[in-house]
This record gives sequence, structure tokens and C-alpha cells, in this order.
Amino acid sequence: MAQASQTLDGWYCLHDFRTMDWTSWKQVPSEKRQRIIHDFLNMVEGWQQVEDNEEGSHALYSIVGQKADFMMMILRPTMEELNEIENAFNKSGLADYTIPAYSYVSVVELGNYMPPKDGSDPTENPEIRARIYPILPKWNHICFYPMDKKREGNDNWYSLPMDERRELMRAHGMTGRKYAGKVKQIITGSTGFDDWEWSVTLFAHNVLQFKKIVYEMRFDEVSARYGDFGPFYVGNLLEPSKVESFLYVK
Amino acid sequence: MAQASQTLDGWYCLHDFRTMDWTSWKQVPSEKRQRIIHDFLNMVEGWQQVEDNEEGSHALYSIVGQKADFMMMILRPTMEELNEIENAFNKSGLADYTIPAYSYVSVVELGNYMPPKDGSDPTENPEIRARIYPILPKWNHICFYPMDKKREGNDNWYSLPMDERRELMRAHGMTGRKYAGKVKQIITGSTGFDDWEWSVTLFAHNVLQFKKIVYEMRFDEVSARYGDFGPFYVGNLLEPSKVESFLYVK
Amino acid sequence: MAQASQTLDGWYCLHDFRTMDWTSWKQVPSEKRQRIIHDFLNMVEGWQQVEDNEEGSHALYSIVGQKADFMMMILRPTMEELNEIENAFNKSGLADYTIPAYSYVSVVELGNYMPPKDGSDPTENPEIRARIYPILPKWNHICFYPMDKKREGNDNWYSLPMDERRELMRAHGMTGRKYAGKVKQIITGSTGFDDWEWSVTLFAHNVLQFKKIVYEMRFDEVSARYGDFGPFYVGNLLEPSKVESFLYVK
Amino acid sequence: MAQASQTLDGWYCLHDFRTMDWTSWKQVPSEKRQRIIHDFLNMVEGWQQVEDNEEGSHALYSIVGQKADFMMMILRPTMEELNEIENAFNKSGLADYTIPAYSYVSVVELGNYMPPKDGSDPTENPEIRARIYPILPKWNHICFYPMDKKREGNDNWYSLPMDERRELMRAHGMTGRKYAGKVKQIITGSTGFDDWEWSVTLFAHNVLQFKKIVYEMRFDEVSARYGDFGPFYVGNLLEPSKVESFLYVK
Amino acid sequence: MAQASQTLDGWYCLHDFRTMDWTSWKQVPSEKRQRIIHDFLNMVEGWQQVEDNEEGSHALYSIVGQKADFMMMILRPTMEELNEIENAFNKSGLADYTIPAYSYVSVVELGNYMPPKDGSDPTENPEIRARIYPILPKWNHICFYPMDKKREGNDNWYSLPMDERRELMRAHGMTGRKYAGKVKQIITGSTGFDDWEWSVTLFAHNVLQFKKIVYEMRFDEVSARYGDFGPFYVGNLLEPSKVESFLYVK
Repeated sequence: MAQASQTLDGWYCLHDFRTMDWTSWKQVPSEKRQRIIHDFLNMVEGWQQVEDNEEGSHALYSIVGQKADFMMMILRPTMEELNEIENAFNKSGLADYTIPAYSYVSVVELGNYMPPKDGSDPTENPEIRARIYPILPKWNHICFYPMDKKREGNDNWYSLPMDERRELMRAHGMTGRKYAGKVKQIITGSTGFDDWEWSVTLFAHNVLQFKKIVYEMRFDEVSARYGDFGPFYVGNLLEPSKVESFLYVK
Repeated sequence: MAQASQTLDGWYCLHDFRTMDWTSWKQVPSEKRQRIIHDFLNMVEGWQQVEDNEEGSHALYSIVGQKADFMMMILRPTMEELNEIENAFNKSGLADYTIPAYSYVSVVELGNYMPPKDGSDPTENPEIRARIYPILPKWNHICFYPMDKKREGNDNWYSLPMDERRELMRAHGMTGRKYAGKVKQIITGSTGFDDWEWSVTLFAHNVLQFKKIVYEMRFDEVSARYGDFGPFYVGNLLEPSKVESFLYVK
Repeated sequence: MAQASQTLDGWYCLHDFRTMDWTSWKQVPSEKRQRIIHDFLNMVEGWQQVEDNEEGSHALYSIVGQKADFMMMILRPTMEELNEIENAFNKSGLADYTIPAYSYVSVVELGNYMPPKDGSDPTENPEIRARIYPILPKWNHICFYPMDKKREGNDNWYSLPMDERRELMRAHGMTGRKYAGKVKQIITGSTGFDDWEWSVTLFAHNVLQFKKIVYEMRFDEVSARYGDFGPFYVGNLLEPSKVESFLYVK
Repeated sequence: MAQASQTLDGWYCLHDFRTMDWTSWKQVPSEKRQRIIHDFLNMVEGWQQVEDNEEGSHALYSIVGQKADFMMMILRPTMEELNEIENAFNKSGLADYTIPAYSYVSVVELGNYMPPKDGSDPTENPEIRARIYPILPKWNHICFYPMDKKREGNDNWYSLPMDERRELMRAHGMTGRKYAGKVKQIITGSTGFDDWEWSVTLFAHNVLQFKKIVYEMRFDEVSARYGDFGPFYVGNLLEPSKVESFLYVK
Repeated sequence: MAQASQTLDGWYCLHDFRTMDWTSWKQVPSEKRQRIIHDFLNMVEGWQQVEDNEEGSHALYSIVGQKADFMMMILRPTMEELNEIENAFNKSGLADYTIPAYSYVSVVELGNYMPPKDGSDPTENPEIRARIYPILPKWNHICFYPMDKKREGNDNWYSLPMDERRELMRAHGMTGRKYAGKVKQIITGSTGFDDWEWSVTLFAHNVLQFKKIVYEMRFDEVSARYGDFGPFYVGNLLEPSKVESFLYVK
């Protein structure tokens, strides 16, 4: 029986993808549309205050293709807060003109974590804090996908000895390190929370870096033999100042 | 031909996940909404009386993410009662503003059960009664998922000798025991009732314990080689006293 | 090349699962609802006359969980009659308030059939007639599922010699025989008719017997290695005299 | 690298399955319904003229079960004509009361074709013409399914030497030949056109022959090891003279 | 650990498939329909100007079968421009009468690319420019499908040495070369962008060439052992001058 790796867990995370019901939205009188957009921006402004207080973080991106029109990524200290934010959005005016497209529930995770030998509290360590309570970068592009580790025939991640798993993850990390400064990666764990075991959220200035890193990593043995990937979403930064034009219709 | 394990079966179980149609709900006049909420709480109060009489049990949780808005878990002595409760809900006012999201039909099961050698009635044994006729704990969080045991190539649970299956389940149980007091687990069997062979419902004070236990268990050989997992749902306790604010819209 | 087993085929069979659109149904004026229920019961009464004449059979069950609200199982001598019954239902008033949930098209089958050596017409044999032209029992519960025999790698049913297949089916039959009087089983074949190769319909007085038989049978080599199972539906007898209260809404 | 087999290709083929929206259809005033049916029959009459001129063929069948209510199978010399017929139907009055249920795009194919050694034009050969430009028989029943040849582990059709593939197909053809006069089979190829590699359309006087042939063929090595089957549809001949009663509602 | 191949990437690409809501479209007053068509053609005219300036390209095809009614393929230098075009379409009048059917996000890719040894900028090389910034041919037919390279058991593309991968791709290219002048192929990469790793778009004068090339290629070892194919779409050129008749309804 293989031994489970240790993880250190931080903020809970909700990825919430929405499709606009443009046909209905167009039929809303212009003044009401303005009020709805205003209310939504107020909500986002509230999230920004939480982020400014380092009590959570969030990101807003438009999504390319028919899978969704935009996505909200929300980080909070508790699952209850995620649920409240989701419900508040659902009760808002804008929600009446959106169709749920996909969501993902998880928690920011520092994997293969080794507890400090001096018995100190790791969550007091600023470097670790920055990784498990991350302020999401407002980079130009986002890429999201959930994933599993395979358990098929001879390719069974969960039957590998921990040393082998750690070595495979270390080599995988080396590939990731080549993209330092180009791609920022947030790993969240979701066993027990959602349908896949992890989710990966990438941020980049240049969207092509997503293709380069995901493609290159697919040759790492950990992905080639053990990775099982869910749907991919790619998007562009939707700054609050651009929400109005994003939602503008004649 | 491998021999089937014995089980002892208790109350029948319905997990019923619902999504609110918030857009329609908002259009209901406030007074009618109050009446609908009141009727729903009356129904829940009726369930509570059944639970107080130890003739069944139930739980009400809000669900995080787009998979559903809330779930009702209902335990009853007969399949007919589950059907009646489901139909009564469907005929209620609140149902008009909910969309069925997922459901699961099963029966609480004590697996690998060994009949008492003294020929006594196990359902008279209080410890066994508490396990097959459980009063659901009102802990902060719920986690639900259905599962199968694999029958793929060399990983065929149903072809293993009973001793081997029992040993694998015993080791699995040891992992579970580490979470005593932190996670309460209800196993239900559903071969012949629904699409998977079992369902697992976990309750926890701290939602992170779901991730810890499910992740750690995945390394147990019984999960690593033989577990096939369905969708996961995670939620927060929805006490009757909070239903009104949960459903409150302007 | 393995030789195909012989089958003897009887009545054609349609399983038709329906979900009520309760919200629309409630909006129908009470008098019209009465008329619609009356028309439906007239249709069922017609089916009963066919059954009384032993020219077909049918069953009506409510379904537990969100998969459907009720199901009609119809047996008839020709595919045309099934189609007519289905179309007549679709054109009926009740159909306007139901949503198709699932259906299955098949023919009652006596598998591994050995033609009589004396050249007599097997369909004149009363025991065989009762098996391929069955009058469905009005037992308390129904369980339905479709299934395939696997053709994966070393687990390829259709490549096994007929003797081996027959021995595996014989052992499987022995498991079934333990449930005589508790579970009545109708096997239908559907290669060429629907998406799976067979469907199984079980009837029981005690719903728990479905779990026991399906679970025990899963350890038979024929299921463990070669069985591939579709969705499961479980339900409670819906006697015509109870249709009105089943459909009653305030 | 295995060598591709040769095929000879004939008319393009569209299978178009439709479900009636009976609830809306019933609400249409009777006179308008008559006009819509009349227009549809005019369209079918136009198809008949094309068939009489041997410039294409078509078939109209009602479908048993909830998968669809009826299907149109259309053969034409060009993909553009199929698209025009489909669009003309979509723009017709009847289409407003149908819901697309499934469709399949392919081309009639003579597989494992060996070009004539004398260099003559095979499409001048009447026997070959009849196979690649077939006039669909108006037999009582239709069975449709798409299929792939497997490429899984050791069961990889596309890695077999051509001689072996030809021998497997020959043996398969022998099984088919037993059903001469009972089942007529149209094979269409669809690599590059639709989601499966081939589709099979069977016609029979007696619907039971579909089950017999598909079941018997499943034991042929080419199906047992290499066949991957999609959804099955079965139906009854819908003669133009019966369309009115098929669509009749009170 | 296998080494990743190099690619050279060009324009970003959106495939956008739409189904007409013909029933609603018919209800639009004729004059408004004219205006909507006019606005759509204006949008296409704008795309044409971009293409004339070689700052992007596009294609418009009707799709055969129920999967979609038409598709727009758009190439642009940035992901933001794709998103803008998509949003502009969604906000247009025509979009109100279309239903999203499928979309795909990718980037034109020159695979197995070897950087020039002289250190020159490959994007200055006209031959390479033509491949990564292609002006889409207005040939009669289009075929689209996404695909993966398999990672299953012994058939794991990402574990093969680069030399072997290159040799397999070279042989595959030889098959493609036989179709020069008959089929034009655009390969786009989509790891990190959408659910499959690549998409293939083929153009042909004669639609049968799609079947021939895809079928023949399936026997190449790279496809036979390592190819995993998604849905296929096939269509006919929809020239702007034919849009009006394509959308014409009585």
C-alpha cells in the first residue's frame, strides 16, 4: 500500500463559468441594463476590498469559444464564503441573463509538502503563505483545466512508491520552472470536493505560453503515463473597467 | 467463482439534489414566496417528527458550485415512503422553482457482515441498529459520491477470493478509523437500485477533512486498484432556521 | 469463430419511462385534469383487455428518484403494435404533461434455447409459451436495466466456445434459482433493436431482493468478467386504482 | 504499415431522425395541420420523382421508442443536394413541430473493392451500379446503426495485414449471405463525414431478422474482436399514404 | 522522458458552429430579416477586408446533417481579436436566431518544426509565412475534426523517442502528399486552449477526397496506434452571395 503524500492547504476556490443569454439581455431596457451592470461592478468592488485586505482573491476573465462567455475565480478562507458569493451572484440581476456553463470547487494546495522539522507553523512562513493564500495576478490570459492521476492497468499513480511519485513530480516541476515569469500556476486539490482530483489555473502575459507549457509537460512521464485531463478553458482578462463595454448591446 | 460477501441492510435512502430557478423565483410575489417557504418548512418539520420517533432521518445541505443549490437526504424504512416524500416535494410549491439536478436511490448497508453465531437477531443489537438505522448528524458539511468496484482486466474486484477482499476492506477501514470524530461515514448499497454499486455520504465539522480522507484512502489498494468514482458533491449545513435567508431574494 | 447460441423469441417489448412536468400539470384546471386521467385509465383498461385475452401484457410502476416519475412496460406480438401504443400515448392528453425520460425496445427471449428433438412446435409447449409470452406479475416492485456482454481484451464473451458460454450461463442460472418465488425475471434481447444487447426486468414482493440478487450475481464469472451494465431503474407498483392519487395535485 | 482497402463509392446519404413536438402540434388549428401535412407529402412526392428517374432514393420509417418518432433516409449524387433537402425540410411547416433527434452523413460504399482488370468503368456494370446507387426497398422494417473498427491494444483492425482483414470480412459476408431475401443491407462509409467510420442500414420484412443477423454476426471474429457499435434505431415503414394518420391528432 | 517536438505557431483560430432556430427565424417580419442578413453580410465584408490586407482569414460553410447549420472559421493574430469577433457575432441580430452547436479554439501550427540554422527569422520566410498565416482557400467543401495522440498502455505517443515520432509523422506526411492539389490541410494546435490536442481542417473541391484521405491515413501507424479522433463535421462552401438564399424563408 502506497503512502499518501502530504499537502498543505490554503484558500478554498470556486471557478464559476457563465454564458450570457444575449438574446434576453438585448431585450432589457437600456436603463435597467445599466443598473444591473452597476450592481455587478459593486459586487466585484466588494471582492476587491477583500483582496486588498488579503482575506481572499478573485479574477474575472472573458472566455474564448462557446464554452462560456466569462468566468469568475474566487478564493476565500471558508467553503461557506464561496457558497455565499455564489448565491449572491445567483440572486443578482446579471445572473438572470447568464446560464451556468461549468464550475469547479477546490482548495489551493501545496503538494508533496514536507512539514518543517523545527515544528514551526508553516502558515507563518511568508513564502508558503504566498503560495497557499495567493493574490491572483491580473495577467492578460487565463487557462483552466481539471485533471486526475490515472489508475489504469500498469499505469497506476496511486500504487507507485512515494519516492517514485516525488521524483516524477520533481522532474515535472523542472519543466514548469522554465516558464518562470511567463506562466504563473495555481494548483488546487479537489478530491472529495469535485469530479477531478486537481485543477490547474495558469496565468500568462502571452497566451501562446499556455500551449507551450501544457504541450511540453505532456512529455513528462508524470503526464504521459499518469495524467488524465478534463476540459480546457482559455480566456482574456476582463478588467472591471471593461465590463460595461463587454456587456454593451445596442 | 468468488463468493458474495454478506451485507446487513437498513433504511432506504434517497439523495435528492435540486437547482433553484432563481430567475422565476424572483418573479414570484413576496407574499406567495413566504407561503411557499412556509409550506416547505412544514414539510421539513414533518420529517423532523419522524426522526424524533426514530422512524427515519434526513439532512438538508446547500451545495457549492453549479451542480445544485441544495440537497435533501432522506432515510426511511420502505422504498414506498421515499417515493411518497419525493412526490410530495414535487407537488409542493417550492418544486415549481427547482430543477432536478441529480438523485440517488440506495439502502444503508453494513458490508462484510458476519451473522451472529448465537442466532440472535442482529437488528436487536443497539450498536448494529445505530449503524443501519442512523440518525444523520447535523455536522457542518456533507460530501456525497457514488462508486463502483472495478472489473477491468487484471483489476477485477468480483473475481478476488473473499479473504482477499475482506483483507483489503479491513485495511481500508483502518484508514477510515484515523478520522474517527472528524468524519462520519454512511455507506449505502445500490446494486439493483441505481447506476453505481455504492454511495458514500460523509459528514464533517471541517470541510477539509473530506479532502484528507478521500485523498488518503485513494492510496489504499482497494481504491487505487479497484475503486471507480462517480461525481462528487460538497455542501454546507442548511438548518431549517436558515432556509428563509437562503431563499430570500429582493 | 464462436458459434452463436440459439434463442427462442416471443412478444416484443417497450419500456417507456416518463417524467411528469408537475409545474404545468398543476396549472391545468381540475376538471380537465380529471378528464385527462380518465382518458389515461381508459387506455390502461384497453391494455388490460388485451392481457385478459393473453394477446399481450403490460405493467405500470412509479419510479423512485429523479430519473423518471413512472414507467409503462408493454408486451405485444408485433413491433407495429408497440409503435401504435407509443404513438397513442404521445397523442393523449397526459403526454402533454410528461417528458420522455428513457425507453427501451426489445423482444422477450429464451436464451441458449435447444430446439426440441421431436420436431414439435415449441410455441405449442405451455411451459415455453409462459416464458416467451409472459403475463407480467403485478408484484410490488420493478427493477430494470440493460446490459451487454463485454468484448474487451481477454474478456471477450463472443470469442468463447459455446460450451464455455453455456456452462457460465448455467452457473448464473443456479444463482437465479435461489431467488425462485422472491424474484421473477424477464429477459429480453435487443441486438439490432436498441443500444444494449439485452434488458433485464425483475419483479419482487420485497424490493431488497433486487439488491441481493444483482449483487450476488455480480460475483458469477459471467457477470464479473463479461457483464457490462447500463442504467438501473427501480420502482413501486402503480395500480390503476392509485393513478388518480398519484397524479393528484392541489 | 497496413495497406488501405479499396472502396467504390456511390450516392451520398443522409439519415435524418426527428421527434414530433406533439404538444405544440396538437395546438395547431386543424386546417393548418392539413396544409402542413400536404406540403410535406408534396416534398416526399418530389423525392419519389427523383427515385423514379433513378437519380436518388429515399425511405420514410416511423421509429419505435423515445429516440425519435420518424426518420428520413435520403440518397443523392452530391453532398450539396443532401444539404438542400435537409434545409428545405428545416424551412418547411412540419419542421416547426419536430425536434432534431439524430442524423448521419455518409456515402454508399462497396468495400474491399477490386478494380476490374480490363480497365472498364465499374460504374457501367449494372450489378455494381445497383449496389452503389441502390433504390431503397420499401420493406416493412428498418434498422440503423453506425460503427467503428476497434484500435485498442491487441485488437487493432488498422494494423492487420490486408489479407487478414479480407479473410475476416469474407467470413462475415458468409454470415450475411444466410439472410439473403430476408435482410437487405446498405453499407455506407463515413470517415471524414461523421463520427463513426461506417453506418449500416438493414431492411427486413420480419423485424426479428434484425436481431438474428446482428446477434449471429457478433460472433464473427471481425465483430467480436474489432467491432465497436453506436446507437441502434429500429422502425416500421411509413408509407406516404399513412403519413396523415401517423400525424393525426384530435 | 521523451523530448517535446518544436512547433512554430501562427494565427489564432476559432471554429464556430451554429444551428439556426428556423422556427423563430420564420416568425421574424421579412423586412427585419433582410436587415439582419444585411448586417451579417456587412460583418463578413469586414472580415474580407482583413483578409485582403493579409491580417487574418476566414471561411463560411454550411454544415450537412443536424450537428449544425453553418460554421465560421476565423483566423486572427491575437486571441483578443477572436474573442471580439465572437462577441460581436453574439451581439448581432442573426445570433438571436442561432443556437451555439460547437466551437474550437486553437492556433495554426507548423509541427516538428526545426529552427533555421542560420538564425534567420522563420516568420520572414514566405513559404513558412504561407503555412502559419494561411489565407483559407474558398474550395467547395470543408471537413473539421479535433484529435489527440493516445496515451493508453503500450500505445503512448508521449513516451516515444522523438526520432520515432518524427519518422511516424514523416510517413503520415507521405500519405498526405498523395492528395496534393485535391485536399488542402490546416493543422492547428490546441493543448492548453481546448479539449483536444490538435484540430484538422481540410478543404477539397470534391467532398469524396475527405473520405479517401482520412480513411487511407487511418492505416498509417501514427493514426492506427496513436490517433484518437473527436467529432467530424462536413460542409459546403457558403459564399456571401448565397447567404441570402440560404437564410431565405417564406
